[in-house]
Amino acid sequence: MYAVEVSDQIMIAHSFRGEVFGPAQKVHGATFVIRVAFLADTLDRHGIVVDIARAHEVLKDALVPLNYHNLDELPQFKGVNTTTEFLTKHVFDALAAAVRDGKLGRDGREIAAIRITIGESPSARAWYEAPVW
Amino acid sequence: MYAVEVSDQIMIAHSFRGEVFGPAQKVHGATFVIRVAFLADTLDRHGIVVDIARAHEVLKDALVPLNYHNLDELPQFKGVNTTTEFLTKHVFDALAAAVRDGKLGRDGREIAAIRITIGESPSARAWYEAPVW
Amino acid sequence: MYAVEVSDQIMIAHSFRGEVFGPAQKVHGATFVIRVAFLADTLDRHGIVVDIARAHEVLKDALVPLNYHNLDELPQFKGVNTTTEFLTKHVFDALAAAVRDGKLGRDGREIAAIRITIGESPSARAWYEAPVW
Amino acid sequence: MYAVEVSDQIMIAHSFRGEVFGPAQKVHGATFVIRVAFLADTLDRHGIVVDIARAHEVLKDALVPLNYHNLDELPQFKGVNTTTEFLTKHVFDALAAAVRDGKLGRDGREIAAIRITIGESPSARAWYEAPVW
Amino acid sequence: MYAVEVSDQIMIAHSFRGEVFGPAQKVHGATFVIRVAFLADTLDRHGIVVDIARAHEVLKDALVPLNYHNLDELPQFKGVNTTTEFLTKHVFDALAAAVRDGKLGRDGREIAAIRITIGESPSARAWYEAPVW
Amino acid sequence: MYAVEVSDQIMIAHSFRGEVFGPAQKVHGATFVIRVAFLADTLDRHGIVVDIARAHEVLKDALVPLNYHNLDELPQFKGVNTTTEFLTKHVFDALAAAVRDGKLGRDGREIAAIRITIGESPSARAWYEAPVW
Repeated sequence: MYAVEVSDQIMIAHSFRGEVFGPAQKVHGATFVIRVAFLADTLDRHGIVVDIARAHEVLKDALVPLNYHNLDELPQFKGVNTTTEFLTKHVFDALAAAVRDGKLGRDGREIAAIRITIGESPSARAWYEAPVW
Repeated sequence: MYAVEVSDQIMIAHSFRGEVFGPAQKVHGATFVIRVAFLADTLDRHGIVVDIARAHEVLKDALVPLNYHNLDELPQFKGVNTTTEFLTKHVFDALAAAVRDGKLGRDGREIAAIRITIGESPSARAWYEAPVW
Repeated sequence: MYAVEVSDQIMIAHSFRGEVFGPAQKVHGATFVIRVAFLADTLDRHGIVVDIARAHEVLKDALVPLNYHNLDELPQFKGVNTTTEFLTKHVFDALAAAVRDGKLGRDGREIAAIRITIGESPSARAWYEAPVW
Repeated sequence: MYAVEVSDQIMIAHSFRGEVFGPAQKVHGATFVIRVAFLADTLDRHGIVVDIARAHEVLKDALVPLNYHNLDELPQFKGVNTTTEFLTKHVFDALAAAVRDGKLGRDGREIAAIRITIGESPSARAWYEAPVW
Repeated sequence: MYAVEVSDQIMIAHSFRGEVFGPAQKVHGATFVIRVAFLADTLDRHGIVVDIARAHEVLKDALVPLNYHNLDELPQFKGVNTTTEFLTKHVFDALAAAVRDGKLGRDGREIAAIRITIGESPSARAWYEAPVW
Repeated sequence: MYAVEVSDQIMIAHSFRGEVFGPAQKVHGATFVIRVAFLADTLDRHGIVVDIARAHEVLKDALVPLNYHNLDELPQFKGVNTTTEFLTKHVFDALAAAVRDGKLGRDGREIAAIRITIGESPSARAWYEAPVW
């Protein structure tokens, strides 16, 4: 299995509900370093998994609605804790849709799976990996 | 599959037996950067894999018996080479037990697997991954 | 000149006033990785610049009032932009006071200068360095 | 499953054919940071996956024909785009052959799989993982 | 003294003349991670050293003539070895000119010095620091 | 001022005397990542500060007596605490001697200063910088 992974970063504010979160129940924030890996069984005729430039663009497009926002105020996140884990799946859904819509410059059916990794600090990160189809 | 990973570090001394180890047969040491990833199919009702604060505590507890010790002198390691690989499994066993005992703040049966990664230098690391149940 | 540097991290929210900040005028956040370096001309009789354990504690103490807060709501930051640069000086003042008060376990007059470095993302950071006396 | 991973680096020039590559169609270059992970179900009698010193040597040997070369001029790459993805498989083949030939100091049949990861910059990397047998 | 530092990266090919360079006399390449630090005695009225967004733009503009090129073929580098050290000064000159021309969004006379750091691999880097005026 | 910096790493054991060291009074160890920077006002006729290959060799030579040793047992360290700070100066002395002896492939008088940085973990490091002459 081949994979190509690109990364970008965002700066957001949010707060969590639930005693388990301790001080993170208050409004705080994070620099999220977000990596998306596209997995495929074969390379295309150019010798690539996907076009890295397009991969960067598609990732950036998926992050625009989050970057420089207080996630608590966004309607799409009403009533949910926007934990790092939750966001890995949120970004996965956007990237998987882009793959299925052929936005990566290759027949989307040739992309088997996507892994989203979000680093929240040097000592903590989360990821979500699943098939695209 | 979701994962959450936290890290900690220890400083230990040890030596190895066997010509394959060359100069590492002498007493030397290492800074080990240890990461534990908890893998789960679903998030809990708070939107997390496990409580990161508890994960840090459980990892630290598992490392106390090793940190600032000469591993050659510890009875639990008598007769074994405490290689980086060996230690990944040693830490895995401690963390898997913590999961099964419900110490991560979530029903342990919802944690599918654990991966322990130990970096011994910028150019070498080892990991061990296995199901918890 | 000798130096010893330790690091810690915080997660905060804030917003900036001024068109120069573009989208960062909205409430957003950051993971700040904060490093403090103590500079000295000589080592003490133990062979150290300062006690690293104490250095970690003093740094952590200085960060408690910031960590997991929306800096916009803290009275000590009323009317100022809590930029990364601004915060380097803010943390410097706290650490310099700790040195002058002898909290690092060594006669503070033997510490010549402090440098505070704050990384806000993999591609941007700021620092402030100045004499303690 | 256990894994041990070592890394090395090379500096190469090359160019790509195909409009998808944009400016990378011109002769440019890269520092490639190359990591090879050996995966095994069990440790050997010394408590290791493979001898790390040998792993470093075998990796370095596989990289000699590439390091400090313009890959466009090497006969083995005639007519192909030496993308990062392509090179992960190229290095995999060399390392898998070394494992099968017993050059890692352990019965090669005990090595289940190899993963080659190549970082081309802080924001892009590729990997290839497959069974050895 | 305050500093703000931003980074970018380029991928170039080149070769060196002189036996001292060994295999690097052949056409090879590098991923250069380039950081520019602006040093100032004071913050401006917004609480910043320079506008980070502008700093990123000015750095990127300075790198466009280099990125994805074989430096051996560029007229501005005719007859010189484009070593990492040489390039630190080359980028410094471009950034110092931008500061003097007021392109950083602040009176350039308030910027005291610039440091350019270029990492060519995880184990080697160079920097150049000098006053702007 | 120009600088070129290269790095290497060693794995050692040692212990410290003095209550200030807490648990580090026991025999433990460290992976030290050691960087040496050579500072010079000018580049030589090849466009370099020093030959990077020679710099790597000279650094490695200086580290051989330390690597894979228990520093407590080395006669040259009898009666001293081999702290990270202490070792920065120890390595500095070896590298400064090499510069003065012309081992870096350039008239040593053209090297103004050396900085040795030793990272002992992701969260702690030390450095020593001084003129060579």
